Amino acid sequence: MKIYFDNAASTPLTTEVIEEMCSVMKENFGNPSSIHAFGREARVIVENARDTIAKCLGAMPSEIFFTSGGTEAINTVIRGYLMTSPVTHVVTSRLEHYAVLNCLEDIQKEKHIQIEYLPHDSKGNIDPGYLETALDGHPRSMVILMHANNETGNILPIREMGAICQKTGAFFLSDTVQTIGKVAVLPKSMNVDSVICSAHKLHGPKGTGFIYLSRSKKLHPLIHGGSQERNMRAGTENVPAIAGMAKALEIACADIDVHFLYISNLKTSMVHRLGNAFPYAEFNGNSGDNGLHSILSVSFPMTDKTEMLQYNLDINGIAVSGGSACTSGSAKPSHVISELKGEKDLVTLRFSFSKFNTPDEVEHCVNVMKRLLA
Amino acid sequence: MKIYFDNAASTPLTTEVIEEMCSVMKENFGNPSSIHAFGREARVIVENARDTIAKCLGAMPSEIFFTSGGTEAINTVIRGYLMTSPVTHVVTSRLEHYAVLNCLEDIQKEKHIQIEYLPHDSKGNIDPGYLETALDGHPRSMVILMHANNETGNILPIREMGAICQKTGAFFLSDTVQTIGKVAVLPKSMNVDSVICSAHKLHGPKGTGFIYLSRSKKLHPLIHGGSQERNMRAGTENVPAIAGMAKALEIACADIDVHFLYISNLKTSMVHRLGNAFPYAEFNGNSGDNGLHSILSVSFPMTDKTEMLQYNLDINGIAVSGGSACTSGSAKPSHVISELKGEKDLVTLRFSFSKFNTPDEVEHCVNVMKRLLA
Repeated sequence: MKIYFDNAASTPLTTEVIEEMCSVMKENFGNPSSIHAFGREARVIVENARDTIAKCLGAMPSEIFFTSGGTEAINTVIRGYLMTSPVTHVVTSRLEHYAVLNCLEDIQKEKHIQIEYLPHDSKGNIDPGYLETALDGHPRSMVILMHANNETGNILPIREMGAICQKTGAFFLSDTVQTIGKVAVLPKSMNVDSVICSAHKLHGPKGTGFIYLSRSKKLHPLIHGGSQERNMRAGTENVPAIAGMAKALEIACADIDVHFLYISNLKTSMVHRLGNAFPYAEFNGNSGDNGLHSILSVSFPMTDKTEMLQYNLDINGIAVSGGSACTSGSAKPSHVISELKGEKDLVTLRFSFSKFNTPDEVEHCVNVMKRLLA
Repeated sequence: MKIYFDNAASTPLTTEVIEEMCSVMKENFGNPSSIHAFGREARVIVENARDTIAKCLGAMPSEIFFTSGGTEAINTVIRGYLMTSPVTHVVTSRLEHYAVLNCLEDIQKEKHIQIEYLPHDSKGNIDPGYLETALDGHPRSMVILMHANNETGNILPIREMGAICQKTGAFFLSDTVQTIGKVAVLPKSMNVDSVICSAHKLHGPKGTGFIYLSRSKKLHPLIHGGSQERNMRAGTENVPAIAGMAKALEIACADIDVHFLYISNLKTSMVHRLGNAFPYAEFNGNSGDNGLHSILSVSFPMTDKTEMLQYNLDINGIAVSGGSACTSGSAKPSHVISELKGEKDLVTLRFSFSKFNTPDEVEHCVNVMKRLLA
């Protein structure tokens, strides 16, 4: 039995997505910028995909810009906004993805920006009051806060945060990589200026993603060349992957409530089973209760048995993330877990679920863990 | 009969490439940064692809960096070199792709750089002597010249140009988008520091490409986040597309001489047929004789019949490029053709061939043109 519980890292592709992509690769190889029939066919596929995606987000097609993935999307929005605007005040959190943290750090080498990291409690929750305080006296800022944390699944009170940004005229980017296709992401009603997507997190292809950017905002492009994406992103569009992403998002949004319930039940079952089997284990952030239904992070005290837990699960065919970066064999905790737990000697596992997981897999996984930690 | 003569814009995918990609999408969806079995499988695919590509270029695997395509690759090398080095002197040509010209123009907004455009003759040839003069008195420069022009197919005396760059310590980037997989591209023997590739120009997938960067050189990344590509390009690797690109390049390199001869014959036949049928037509650059075997650019005086030639060929199922950017219905000549021909009233067609074209297609195309221009 091979079990894949690392869906926050990447997901298996839906069969319809693969079929769609293979069909486009076979039949529609034209360059969408070409004006002949082969090009126009490709253009229709790209624009239909944009339309589908816009509908899923309650947005206009002109608010969707294709990129090569989530990381490029984040870099484009942050750099594209900060490097050509007078804004020098950035509000974010130390719990953001490295795409945000490292992009900001890089910009600091070129431009003086003041980065304010909002405080969080021991669960990783950020009080909206702190955002209000941070923006006080800053008529224009850039606010970057992820919709759901990729390690703990903690969900931001995004609408409330967005309203605070709107009140002070701050540009609000939310990294929605873990939430698009899993919960409703409707930027307009969330008061967000920009959200981003990585298709391979929602059973779509790697190498493609998009930026939603409110019509009222403008960005300077990161990649220059041809006039693709209305001069916002140069380079030939990845036609089959864009078609595959639209298909994946369409499927995800069509049955979003069904999958939400199904995956929530998997996680609840895992929480109960783990809690019963290992009462000393700690669920990180809100992942044990009201965090994102697809992510569960749990820490064990470091012992000679837990130390190799992720490795031994892998040997047993069960893929989970360590929430850790493995450097020369020695596992060190991720920046998110370190922020929440300090430098305690812990072993952390992140289970992340998808609609392709089953209750049997949850049961089997906990049984294997019981055996490994007995 | 549908005929595709726009292979410089994009190419049909080889069946083996589609099969390879579909197989990877089905079987190997893991994130190559994950340390469990699913991740390791994906990592093996990425590293095997890097190895294959390096071999085709006579390079080391550590000199290959994956990107989302040619435009990102060019932007990465130019920005990555200029923005973090003391170099302020750039030597290039007005015949380069917009990815080069617009990237440089963008950098000029942030950093003082002196851009020197090398002169060319009416065929678009650049005398190496001009490069020598341009570099004289500049101990460190960046030189950017394409290996073969995408509109005229003119081939740069790259080895000679590279030797001049080496002598003065200039960083030499050559845009090899039109040549990789079509002629031998061996950066080390060409004295080039960096070349780039776009997979969809050689029967590979859209949305992927690579940078070759000599081990002796370093670049600052364009996209920040995770530590993928040895900290040179953040973002989850596009595993299936990378596998597809390696397969496409492997196939191209295995039979490079056979395809060279076959495609050369197609072009020679087209040149003769067009020359006989339309003695007043002018072949642009060296495309009528010793230019790249896959590209043929031809201009006709503007008449009521030639004006709609590209459009009417399209109606007849024949896809060619106008070498032009269509703006609100009015065709204006491309920047390359304008450079060579001035603002003359001409209609320019670019025919670009691949191994999938046939002698019958060439004959049929010229017959249709005869009918349209009779």
